Amino acid sequence: MQSFKNVELVKKANIYFDGNVTSRTFIDSDGSKKSLGIMMIGEYLFGTAEAEIMEIIAGAVEVRLKGEENWVAYNSGSSFSVPANSSFDIKVKAITDYCCSYVK
Amino acid sequence: MQSFKNVELVKKANIYFDGNVTSRTFIDSDGSKKSLGIMMIGEYLFGTAEAEIMEIIAGAVEVRLKGEENWVAYNSGSSFSVPANSSFDIKVKAITDYCCSYVK
Repeated sequence: MQSFKNVELVKKANIYFDGNVTSRTFIDSDGSKKSLGIMMIGEYLFGTAEAEIMEIIAGAVEVRLKGEENWVAYNSGSSFSVPANSSFDIKVKAITDYCCSYVK
Repeated sequence: MQSFKNVELVKKANIYFDGNVTSRTFIDSDGSKKSLGIMMIGEYLFGTAEAEIMEIIAGAVEVRLKGEENWVAYNSGSSFSVPANSSFDIKVKAITDYCCSYVK
């Protein structure tokens, strides 16, 4: 069972889109900020401040980065990157468990 | 901002009721097992193995413990206890952010 050790876990959840996307922020042992979240089936637009690496732990999504025409599918075990100060559309095809790493 | 420090956070989410209840398990710095979770609006029946203390971080629920006739309301900042090897019905009236502590 994979786990993150020696982390600081924020108690209060992040709740987006009426609870259809929720996440828990934590500070990993190396000081980097990450979040573990759940996305229910649906379509969402997310903006980014910092750059992000989104790892799909379990689930199925299609993603279109800002400025791109094509949707790209990502499933369990795959990742995609999003630049800082950008956005992406995401279609969640099955309930999705993800880990978002914020990149300085 | 409240947080749990020096914890071990399990990567994979716990997903119940088609994703309407999800949680993240962590081991607190004292070695005790806890989870932080989200419940969407709905009605659910949960069984317990270990005894649990359920803290409502934000939200609104009504709870009926096994063997009880009455429903009791709990809102943000309140808690209820559930015995080991028991169960409880819960009506979630508003999306609810909770912390569950397992009691040995």
